[in-house]
Amino acid sequence: MIESKENGCATTEKIYIKGKLHDIAVGMKKINLTDTVTINSKGEKIYKKNAPVIVYDTGGVHTDENISININEGIPRLRERWIKRRGDIVELNQLSSEYGRKRDKDSSTESIRFKKRYLPVKAVEGKEISQMYYARKGIITEEMEYVAIRENMQNEELGIKSHITPEFVREEIAAGRAIIPANINHPESEPMIIGSTFLVKINTNIGNSALSSSIEEEVEKAIWSCKWGGDTLMDLSTGKNIHETREWIIRNSPTPIGTVPIYQALEKVNGNVKDLTWEIYRDTLIEQCEQGVDYFTIHAGVTKSHIELSKERLTGVVSRGGSIMMQWCAIHNCESFLYTHFDDICDIVRQYDVALSLGDGMRPGSIYDANDKAQFSELEVLGELTQRAWDKNVQVIIEGPGHVPMNKIKENMNKQIECCKGAPFYTLGPLTTDIAPGYDHITSAIGAAMIAWYGTAMICYVTPKEHLGLPNKEDVRNGIIAYKIAAHAADIAKGHPGADVRDNALSKARFEFRWLDQFNLSLDKERALEYYKESNRGISDFCTMCGPNFCAMRLTKEIHKGDVSC
Amino acid sequence: MIESKENGCATTEKIYIKGKLHDIAVGMKKINLTDTVTINSKGEKIYKKNAPVIVYDTGGVHTDENISININEGIPRLRERWIKRRGDIVELNQLSSEYGRKRDKDSSTESIRFKKRYLPVKAVEGKEISQMYYARKGIITEEMEYVAIRENMQNEELGIKSHITPEFVREEIAAGRAIIPANINHPESEPMIIGSTFLVKINTNIGNSALSSSIEEEVEKAIWSCKWGGDTLMDLSTGKNIHETREWIIRNSPTPIGTVPIYQALEKVNGNVKDLTWEIYRDTLIEQCEQGVDYFTIHAGVTKSHIELSKERLTGVVSRGGSIMMQWCAIHNCESFLYTHFDDICDIVRQYDVALSLGDGMRPGSIYDANDKAQFSELEVLGELTQRAWDKNVQVIIEGPGHVPMNKIKENMNKQIECCKGAPFYTLGPLTTDIAPGYDHITSAIGAAMIAWYGTAMICYVTPKEHLGLPNKEDVRNGIIAYKIAAHAADIAKGHPGADVRDNALSKARFEFRWLDQFNLSLDKERALEYYKESNRGISDFCTMCGPNFCAMRLTKEIHKGDVSC
Repeated sequence: MIESKENGCATTEKIYIKGKLHDIAVGMKKINLTDTVTINSKGEKIYKKNAPVIVYDTGGVHTDENISININEGIPRLRERWIKRRGDIVELNQLSSEYGRKRDKDSSTESIRFKKRYLPVKAVEGKEISQMYYARKGIITEEMEYVAIRENMQNEELGIKSHITPEFVREEIAAGRAIIPANINHPESEPMIIGSTFLVKINTNIGNSALSSSIEEEVEKAIWSCKWGGDTLMDLSTGKNIHETREWIIRNSPTPIGTVPIYQALEKVNGNVKDLTWEIYRDTLIEQCEQGVDYFTIHAGVTKSHIELSKERLTGVVSRGGSIMMQWCAIHNCESFLYTHFDDICDIVRQYDVALSLGDGMRPGSIYDANDKAQFSELEVLGELTQRAWDKNVQVIIEGPGHVPMNKIKENMNKQIECCKGAPFYTLGPLTTDIAPGYDHITSAIGAAMIAWYGTAMICYVTPKEHLGLPNKEDVRNGIIAYKIAAHAADIAKGHPGADVRDNALSKARFEFRWLDQFNLSLDKERALEYYKESNRGISDFCTMCGPNFCAMRLTKEIHKGDVSC
Repeated sequence: MIESKENGCATTEKIYIKGKLHDIAVGMKKINLTDTVTINSKGEKIYKKNAPVIVYDTGGVHTDENISININEGIPRLRERWIKRRGDIVELNQLSSEYGRKRDKDSSTESIRFKKRYLPVKAVEGKEISQMYYARKGIITEEMEYVAIRENMQNEELGIKSHITPEFVREEIAAGRAIIPANINHPESEPMIIGSTFLVKINTNIGNSALSSSIEEEVEKAIWSCKWGGDTLMDLSTGKNIHETREWIIRNSPTPIGTVPIYQALEKVNGNVKDLTWEIYRDTLIEQCEQGVDYFTIHAGVTKSHIELSKERLTGVVSRGGSIMMQWCAIHNCESFLYTHFDDICDIVRQYDVALSLGDGMRPGSIYDANDKAQFSELEVLGELTQRAWDKNVQVIIEGPGHVPMNKIKENMNKQIECCKGAPFYTLGPLTTDIAPGYDHITSAIGAAMIAWYGTAMICYVTPKEHLGLPNKEDVRNGIIAYKIAAHAADIAKGHPGADVRDNALSKARFEFRWLDQFNLSLDKERALEYYKESNRGISDFCTMCGPNFCAMRLTKEIHKGDVSC
């Protein structure tokens, strides 16, 4: 807490907004501002209140000072009550996945295992439990009301008209235009919605590779990620102990967790693509469904026919999952089991309400390959799979590129809407040039902001280390802030109700030299404060950028106050 | 120089491309690539050459290892011969500006003065000498051929058809759609062109404020700026010794230098806006023309009527020059002397071929104020002034915003083209959101890339310290790279001939794990290498980002080579 000297306190606090339909409380961040101080003709100070600004907060309990967290215990299970009350799930006696049971019995993993155990739940035989199913039945769930409140921030108080009501949320989910990733085995997650008529979301990736990083580091990065503003988190670990790492992450994560199950399946066959089978993959899906993964990236759109198409490319296939499946197709000379078993996949995930993120295995890895036949022919397959998932009430999002020059970005969005009938688009960047390794958070923030403005619902962050190595915590922070900028710039450009309240409050604070308010309203107040302190010796009516005589804002105020006269 | 082990050398070198019309040599950077190595069915290595990539180089002699620079002497005077040969200039016996002569006689400034002195030149009475004048007369100058070669890089060799010929350059300048800022008193500068049909350029700002920094630092920053890729440099100093600092910068700068003369004029009256006069300003213009400043930002579009319009704003006037002139108008209750004396200004600068950058004193300082009446009404005045400058063969560019949400950027470009009849647009960002102080190089790179794609000819960089303090060298580097990215992304999106050659070469190198080539082709090879080394232990066929088993590029290559079989 930073205290201002005279005119109120510049503070931030966690608040909870109650639901009207359900007994829910939505965590938000409230930024209390100091007063505007002017001096009247008698030389007296006049104080004028500035309304606090309420902002979306992805940090969950991790950003609530009043709640102490023990990562060995996990965070509170917010949604457990809601899920149980519906009476359509059953608690299992044991894990359904063979691999899960094996790991549990393996004494060598005991030391790294998350201690507290919960038995998994799944849908009662014959029952449907997905948010899409409820929405189609006309039911507004707790999750739906939660996101409606969350998306509106202080719109009601400010009299800003918003299209986002609980009923609107329900309609969008029913139509497939939005999803709430919410595995019933991850009740710790705070509901959030992904759809083009809502705030643009950002995904962050963490995960160790065979070469580095530990469980502690990954859990730390997961918490770090949601504190800085990650809306969802993908655990892309590919090394040892994926199963145990994931459990730790899920039990401590207030944001939905995504994975790419083929990575773990491949580890199970020691990296030999040839040995991958549907059975191993199927068991992996069930294992992860019961741990609480909220969405799976499935590269079911990469089919045998893509091998030929990829040969014309400059950079071939750059999706890990895509290249694995293409290699599998080549080795066995048969169609991808992800494609042939797609209905089976849907039948598994629908029992846990795990959403599908249809992976773009053919995403372009260079400007040269953008919008090519390989990419767009896969998108057509994804459109077909979207319908098949929807037929089973499975929530779906569609992954997109990649590397795309600015002039070809719009076509991606149009084509995706056309092929996938409005299912939410979820893109990696896109990077708008290939020539800036070390700065790909920037090359891609440009493309991400644009595609989000055009209608992409979620953008997957890229860190400065992209193409070069695994990101560290500082890289994660830089990647997240670049993407919060892109998402917010898109929210403003789209005219999302109330999106510019924070901008206006910050600009007003800037104009009035309320520095503490300016820092608190920043996406990264620590960095802003650090830079300010580096150049300035205390708070004043100007900064070193222009110095006192050349501060345009100070001059303007003098003119408007009438301090200048003929 | 980084050497590769077996297949040729990964090197970069400075090369000079000769002119065909004139005796000129254009400095470029040549990146030599290593060979592509494949293994044939007999297990033998097959080497295949990769063509070198020639890239635009703003560093001048500072990036030529074979030339040793002594900053006390200044850099070679490349254009002196060309200028003298035209026979339309005269060398003066002394400085024309009173202030310039005073400083020269002031013994207290001797220790900080640039030692080597050149007498100023100006047009022979009654002669016209601007690039615009020559262009309109049908003359292709050395400068015009120079930029035509520079813009094309290796297009001819590669058989890439380009619209940019010396004659095309001449036509664009004659029409006012492009300028070559080239003061005859800054013969050290390498010709560069600013116009929407050419490569997008970036401007960097340096300058001390009353509170910090020294001459040495500013000269160091100027060289640093052109080494990293700044196309032009504005010296925005507002502290003491502006005159001497500027001399040092100009004598060592291969890029055109811009200034805002009102800053120095204000220093001359000790910061009292009231005391500013046309006479003081006029003497300042002449002083700077004779030092070699290549373009002046003149806030002549801010008129008395803008005082009222600015009152409705959230953040008033954020342009320093704009706020000074508005305050002057308010104090004296009369029209701005920059506006009333605009023809006189043109008559001064035309004698030295100094270009005018018509300042946007009313640029919005917040998302809220974007595209408002104050801003657009000033733009209309700038359109009128453009025509008046053109009538006197004065080269003109138009400055633009500022803070603008993505959905309002296009309107800025359209309105500028309409008002200013195609004169080049030169924008600061724009920043697409206000909420990220500390990251405004990113908030603005998004807007800059977009507006450059729409047709803006030059984008003025923003550093991470914007709104917080004066940038240090590392901030300058980060700002420049963010803007090189934005400019290059726009060049690609606009389909500039050959712009994607570097992207394709880098992506090919990436796909083939030619790491050294990848680094050399990067905008910032030091940073890329640093990040790579941080995570990896030597060069290999993968990186820690995915690890060996999950490297999609490695997998793809195996599939295409046929290493996988049924």
